[in-house]
Amino acid sequence: MSRIAYVDGQYVPHGEASVHIEDRGYQFADGVYEVVAVCAGRRVDDERHFARLERSLGELEIPMPMSRRALAVVMDEVLRRNRVQDGIIYLQITRGQAPRDHAWSDSSNPVMTITARRQSPPDDALARRGVQVITLPDQRWKRNDIKAVSLLANIMGKSRARAAGAYEAWLIDDNDLVTEGTSTTAWIVSDGGNMVTRPLDEAILGGVTRAALIDIARQAGKIVEERAFSRAEAMAAREAFLTSTTAYVLAITSIDGNEIGDGRPGPVTEDLLERYRRHVSGNTF
Amino acid sequence: MSRIAYVDGQYVPHGEASVHIEDRGYQFADGVYEVVAVCAGRRVDDERHFARLERSLGELEIPMPMSRRALAVVMDEVLRRNRVQDGIIYLQITRGQAPRDHAWSDSSNPVMTITARRQSPPDDALARRGVQVITLPDQRWKRNDIKAVSLLANIMGKSRARAAGAYEAWLIDDNDLVTEGTSTTAWIVSDGGNMVTRPLDEAILGGVTRAALIDIARQAGKIVEERAFSRAEAMAAREAFLTSTTAYVLAITSIDGNEIGDGRPGPVTEDLLERYRRHVSGNTF
Repeated sequence: MSRIAYVDGQYVPHGEASVHIEDRGYQFADGVYEVVAVCAGRRVDDERHFARLERSLGELEIPMPMSRRALAVVMDEVLRRNRVQDGIIYLQITRGQAPRDHAWSDSSNPVMTITARRQSPPDDALARRGVQVITLPDQRWKRNDIKAVSLLANIMGKSRARAAGAYEAWLIDDNDLVTEGTSTTAWIVSDGGNMVTRPLDEAILGGVTRAALIDIARQAGKIVEERAFSRAEAMAAREAFLTSTTAYVLAITSIDGNEIGDGRPGPVTEDLLERYRRHVSGNTF
Repeated sequence: MSRIAYVDGQYVPHGEASVHIEDRGYQFADGVYEVVAVCAGRRVDDERHFARLERSLGELEIPMPMSRRALAVVMDEVLRRNRVQDGIIYLQITRGQAPRDHAWSDSSNPVMTITARRQSPPDDALARRGVQVITLPDQRWKRNDIKAVSLLANIMGKSRARAAGAYEAWLIDDNDLVTEGTSTTAWIVSDGGNMVTRPLDEAILGGVTRAALIDIARQAGKIVEERAFSRAEAMAAREAFLTSTTAYVLAITSIDGNEIGDGRPGPVTEDLLERYRRHVSGNTF
C-alpha cells in the first residue's frame, strides 16, 4: 500500500509530497507542529492537541488554516487513506511561501501538511526494562512553550544522547534545574512518593501527555508537585520517568550513568503507565 | 524572464522548486545557509562564505555536498541562468529527507538549494538618512555561531522591529550586553573614535561583512575593539551602525527612540561605508 500525505489542500502520494523551497518553514523554521497518537482508530487527547496548536499558531501570528472540525475531518481522512488504526499523525503548519525576508507579512497563506503512519504502542519489554538518560546544557531558545519546528537544539541533544547509548537527554538550565527532555517531559518521584514535574513556563513545552497524566494521577488521589527540580535532586530521586505522546510513561533507570532507585522501573512509574494505557485505550481513568 | 532555481542536482523553474515534506530542514530546521552578495557578476567575499558554510555544516555533522570548486560552478550557473549581475545568491543545505526521528543518522543525503535574485546595492538615500533600531531580549538559542535555518527567534525579533517602525532589533543578553541584530552585526563608535563590536563567541554569528570590515578598517589604521558593549553604552555612543551582506554598513540614528550622536550618520560610519563599497566593487581597500 502506498502512503498518502495531505499537502496544502490535496491528498498526494507520499513520495511526491513536497513544499516550495521558499516556504518559510524551510527557510526560517517559521511553523508549528503536533504529533497525535492514534489508538484503535481514535485520536488520543485531540482537544488538548487542538488547543496547543491554536496557542502555538497564535504566538506566531499564523492564522489557523481551518476550523478544528474541518481539521479533524482531514486528519481522519489521512488515517483512512493510510489504513492507520494504531499509530501517529504528524501535522505541520507553516506561514507558507513568500519571497525570503526575515520579517513576516500577512500576504502568505499558511501551508498545512499531514502524514500518518502505523506505529505500535511503546514496547512493553522496554517499559519493563526502563531507559537511560544523559544530561546536557539546555541550549535551546527561550520560548519552548511554542511547539515550533525550530528544533535544531533538540535534535542535536537527541543525537548526542543516542551516540552515548542513551534514550534521551535531559536538558539543564543555567540554575542547574532540569527543564525537560529533547522531545519528552521530565518527571521524578520524591522521597514522599509524590510526582514532581516542572511547572509550565516558557522554558518547557506544555506536554499533552504531561497534562493528561496530571489529571489521571490527581483523580487517583496522587499528589503532583509542579515545581522545578535540580539535576542533583533527580540523581537522588526514588524514581524518574519521562512522558510523551509516543513514549507514554517510560521509566528511567539511570541518569548520566548513575542508577536511579534500585536501577529498575519503580512502582509509581509502573502504576502510572498502567493508568495511562487505560486512558489511551479510551477507558476512563 | 522566468527564474531558475537549483534543487538537489537539478536546475528547475522557480515555481516548481520544491523539497519533500520530510526534508529535515522542513521538520527540524536541520540545515544551514549562506547569502552571498554579487557585484558586477562577481561573488563578494566568497572564500569567507565557503569557510563559514563548511564550519556550520561541520558543527551539525552534515557533509559538504560537493567541493568548493564545484559549488562555485553551480552558483555561477544559477547567476548566469537568472542573468544576475548585481544581486544576491541564497544557498541552503539541509540534512535531507528521512523518516521523521529527532536523532539524525548517516543515511540521508544532504539537499542543497540555490536561488539568485537581482537586487540593487543598499539605497544611498537610506545610508545618508540612517535607520532606527529597537532593543529586545535575546531569546535565541546558545549557538548563534552556526548559520542555521533555525531562525524563528530572529524573525520574531525582526517582525517586532518592523511593527515598531524600526529597521532592525538589537538583541540584549542576560547581562544587558548587545549580542547582535536579528540579521546584522552591531557596532558602535567609542568616545575615542574606535570601532567597537562584540568578539566572536557562540552568542553571535561570525559575520562575513564584520570580518571584511575589520580587515579594511585595520588596514586603514583604525582601531577596532572586539569587546562586548552594553545597551547603555550603545545609547551614549558617538555613532552606531550595523553591517550585513545585503545592508553593507548602515548608520543607526536612534536606539529605542533615543538619538545617537546628533541623530545623523556620523563621519566614522560614512567613511567605513565608502571603504566597504570599494571593497565590494572589487577594488583593494
